[in-house]
Amino acid sequence: MAARGQEPLLARGPPSDGSGDIEEEDALLTGQRTHKPQHASTTDVVKSRWKEIGLFIWALVATAAVVVLAVVYQHAQSGSNNRGEAARPTGKRNLIFMVSDGMGPTSMAMARGWRQFAEQLPYDETLVLDQHLIGQSRTRSTSSLVTDSAAGATAFSCGLKSYNGAISVLPDHSPCGSVMEAAKRMGYTTGLVVTTRITDATPAVFASHVRRREMEDEIALQMIGETHPLGSMVDLMLGGGRCHFLPNSSEDSCREDDVDVTKVAEAKQWQYISTREDFDNLGTEVKLPLLGLFAHGDIPYEIDRQYQDDVYPSLEDMARTALNALSAATKDSEQGFFVMIEGSRIDHAGHANDPAAQVHEVLAYDRTVAAVMEFIKDSETPTVMVSTSDHETGGLATARQLHPEYPIYHWYPGVLANVSQSGEYLSRVYHEYLAGLPAANNLGAAQASNEGTKAYLKSLISKSLGIYDPTEDEIETLLEHPAIASYLFSDMVSRRAQTGWSTHGHSGADVNIYSSDRHAASRLVGQHENTEVGEFLRWYLDLDDEVEKVTGKLKKHMETSSNGESWLGRIPAADERLDGQDHLDHYVGDHKKRDAGCDACGRW
Amino acid sequence: MAARGQEPLLARGPPSDGSGDIEEEDALLTGQRTHKPQHASTTDVVKSRWKEIGLFIWALVATAAVVVLAVVYQHAQSGSNNRGEAARPTGKRNLIFMVSDGMGPTSMAMARGWRQFAEQLPYDETLVLDQHLIGQSRTRSTSSLVTDSAAGATAFSCGLKSYNGAISVLPDHSPCGSVMEAAKRMGYTTGLVVTTRITDATPAVFASHVRRREMEDEIALQMIGETHPLGSMVDLMLGGGRCHFLPNSSEDSCREDDVDVTKVAEAKQWQYISTREDFDNLGTEVKLPLLGLFAHGDIPYEIDRQYQDDVYPSLEDMARTALNALSAATKDSEQGFFVMIEGSRIDHAGHANDPAAQVHEVLAYDRTVAAVMEFIKDSETPTVMVSTSDHETGGLATARQLHPEYPIYHWYPGVLANVSQSGEYLSRVYHEYLAGLPAANNLGAAQASNEGTKAYLKSLISKSLGIYDPTEDEIETLLEHPAIASYLFSDMVSRRAQTGWSTHGHSGADVNIYSSDRHAASRLVGQHENTEVGEFLRWYLDLDDEVEKVTGKLKKHMETSSNGESWLGRIPAADERLDGQDHLDHYVGDHKKRDAGCDACGRW
Repeated sequence: MAARGQEPLLARGPPSDGSGDIEEEDALLTGQRTHKPQHASTTDVVKSRWKEIGLFIWALVATAAVVVLAVVYQHAQSGSNNRGEAARPTGKRNLIFMVSDGMGPTSMAMARGWRQFAEQLPYDETLVLDQHLIGQSRTRSTSSLVTDSAAGATAFSCGLKSYNGAISVLPDHSPCGSVMEAAKRMGYTTGLVVTTRITDATPAVFASHVRRREMEDEIALQMIGETHPLGSMVDLMLGGGRCHFLPNSSEDSCREDDVDVTKVAEAKQWQYISTREDFDNLGTEVKLPLLGLFAHGDIPYEIDRQYQDDVYPSLEDMARTALNALSAATKDSEQGFFVMIEGSRIDHAGHANDPAAQVHEVLAYDRTVAAVMEFIKDSETPTVMVSTSDHETGGLATARQLHPEYPIYHWYPGVLANVSQSGEYLSRVYHEYLAGLPAANNLGAAQASNEGTKAYLKSLISKSLGIYDPTEDEIETLLEHPAIASYLFSDMVSRRAQTGWSTHGHSGADVNIYSSDRHAASRLVGQHENTEVGEFLRWYLDLDDEVEKVTGKLKKHMETSSNGESWLGRIPAADERLDGQDHLDHYVGDHKKRDAGCDACGRW
Repeated sequence: MAARGQEPLLARGPPSDGSGDIEEEDALLTGQRTHKPQHASTTDVVKSRWKEIGLFIWALVATAAVVVLAVVYQHAQSGSNNRGEAARPTGKRNLIFMVSDGMGPTSMAMARGWRQFAEQLPYDETLVLDQHLIGQSRTRSTSSLVTDSAAGATAFSCGLKSYNGAISVLPDHSPCGSVMEAAKRMGYTTGLVVTTRITDATPAVFASHVRRREMEDEIALQMIGETHPLGSMVDLMLGGGRCHFLPNSSEDSCREDDVDVTKVAEAKQWQYISTREDFDNLGTEVKLPLLGLFAHGDIPYEIDRQYQDDVYPSLEDMARTALNALSAATKDSEQGFFVMIEGSRIDHAGHANDPAAQVHEVLAYDRTVAAVMEFIKDSETPTVMVSTSDHETGGLATARQLHPEYPIYHWYPGVLANVSQSGEYLSRVYHEYLAGLPAANNLGAAQASNEGTKAYLKSLISKSLGIYDPTEDEIETLLEHPAIASYLFSDMVSRRAQTGWSTHGHSGADVNIYSSDRHAASRLVGQHENTEVGEFLRWYLDLDDEVEKVTGKLKKHMETSSNGESWLGRIPAADERLDGQDHLDHYVGDHKKRDAGCDACGRW
């Protein structure tokens, strides 16, 4: 030990020149000793020591570099590997999950073409989202090749397939733990931002469980934590759907009971706001939990909302506020946040077959994506954005054959660019006009009234749709079938723009997946089942175990609460329609009663 | 110098234990000397020398590791970088470019759903192509948001946008060099494999230049090298379209002149074959150049061809033969091969709005992809496959609303699985039946004949379409409009399967990009302009300069040959339709003459 302890590691002077080194390196390489006297002075030993230090530092630095490079390479490898273990931050992180409800790939092509036309951009000018395409998702549910939003969103929340109409329950009608519930329980701060009712399927699946999506009164109670077995699982909710939170004694209500859910929420410390002014006054330090409901039902389509910016915040406004609030709330936390942001009404415009409304919805979503990307760039906490759709709606095609003659290869974004209101909005305006007409007591008065209505319609159509050549047939149909005016206005636009639709419902098309970071989201690169999107969410937040635990707790609660009937609702009948087919009834009347004899009403 | 030369690099013994090291490392870290005697024996110096050698080797190994890791990382980075310089083999290589003409993303969803149904597969069983999705392509041409196959394929061949109808010519009507021409001139062996006419737009752009795609007689002459300014640019052609190679004195001809292009080709050393027997007898050592034309026009749809396998080779058959022949031909060459393989008639099934025919076309294409992947796996030469579409056709939706009632969310692959022939085939059979009927000389005979035809149609429809519930209206329409029987048969299937179509033409949808190797093809990962696919082809083969040279030579030839009118054709008139709208006329009559008064004829 003494001998070793005396080894002269530091006993080396600085080098004088390099000539000796060459000889020594030769010796190292050949194993031959240099032919130099083996005399060792203390100075020599000091020099040797310095040499050793130099070598040691070199070796140490090189080794450190190896370690760093190896880790970085490992990172890059896993990032570029389709199914491999991708790079996931080990510490605090945020996840922003965006849903473009009902948006198929062709909606992107339509919005991109519109923008290039309207803003006179070159043909290769893309949307923000285009720059982040990483893959596609297959969307079928357990009950159909064509999913609804409930089964589609349950694939995201639980990572499991279920039946159309299921809100985070499985085909056996038992609840499945959602990634947001697990996140909340593990210390994440959570949020939901939508432009439809906050109790609609896509937001609902993250923080509630019911067997039929129509149970929105119950969903509202679960979301604020009143009837959810585990309490509230969400810290921030911004969107529409106030009517499911107000008692049926209120004019603004659509609840069946007289529970004032906003008051229940406030008793549970929720901050409840409902106006643009409240929203603007939130400031930077937002008190959570926050419930912001800015519309009776849906927030108006962006094409209509742009004229009512003082009444309704935009999706981008709400997303920015949510990100700032969640970021501030988790500033000093160990965990970051998880938020779902939905462009909810791209889907509605698809149901309505309204191409102009849809273009503006897609562009509003794209601006929100840009805001999210900006947030991520500035965020100190690693943050990933993943964006996808639950399904396609409408069977949209950027082409439409109008006559038996073989079609010219064109579609016309310019027609859409002339439109300044949605069919939904114009239908409401038209219905208000009709309601204001005096009742016609004789044939002459009725005819005069008809002529007046025709003139009114022509004026409305030219002003709001930019259409100056309505046919007599189109005007007559609007006059005779005001209940479906919304569809008729949209069809006038679609035909002239040559945009095609195959249905007012959903389709089974594959939808795109986008991400801010194709390495972190490498599990979603390429073609995937929609459940793999859900698996990614829980994997990124490292919540696989906790989701299972939540499922266990929920199932136990189901078993001990008369099989869950009180909160999950009754088990649907075998022939019950569960695909949310009612959600266009808000403004346009009951399209299911639509006149089957009306030839001009649509194309099927 | 002597003092330095005497430094005792080797003067160190092996370590006895580690205790001293700790103290020494402390000293290194703190800069303090160890409190040990500064006595230096020769043994100490020798020990020190060994220590230095150890450190030196450590440093050297670590440094080498840094270099290796840095290079590997650089490689990995470029491979995973969207637009960065991706990994491209430096030596011999092959490129297999596959085109699924007219296939949008929804065709994949439809074929996948069909296969899962028909073969009783689980919901996550995908097509081969699904496993290779890397991105999407935008398809607009210079003349329209909706491209035709000519402009779409010119984006691939020249990497440049042009007008609908352009066969590797630019908007100024001058020729642009194609990647295949450059490849051929640089020593690659080249091939084209299709199921339509080999003179159709997609294959034509690679080896010919004309200003209007209809000039197929001229294209045939250019492709065999007779009128191409640079001679033949292709070594192997397999497909249909014999009629453009035979003189108008032949019954099998569709040429306007009496040139026998097969004879001209044979005089130029081409091996010409036209039967399945010839094809099967090619063996493994195929004499190039090879011209194999196995059909008058198009090779039948796969759904019909499967019963005539002794007459027509499948796309997979032709692809396997082509790959083996090209591989053998380049066995000892410095350069590999470049081949374009097209699933040509996915597009035709889209034009015909025939979902059953399309499913079988897509699956045949997918089997060909599997064969290509198998070839790549076994190939000793680095080989990359890239697959994309020129555009979508038909505005296909896997959903269709049949009634004004709000649609149930479903489409029915089972209906398609019952179909055993294409609408095109059945229409031909029906026309043959009608041609065999005796002329009706009086009203009674005509009525009797009508009743017979109705019974015949019902039998034909049940046997070949699996439809047992034709409506009286459907049968009546078939009786009254036999010219559009092909469309009517397909529409019967589409309605029952609930597959929607918006047009008999093309649409402006984005199309998918697939590759065997997402690293080699990393330039195509994500969203891209169709011209970037063309840029990739020439980049992968390292032909940027040569393509420019070819363009220069072609332009010079144009200027010296009465402005190219003899080979490029006249400059199209401003209002001339150039989008190949005639290519469904082969069997179904002139659909442009379709009766505008026929309500049941379609959905527009």
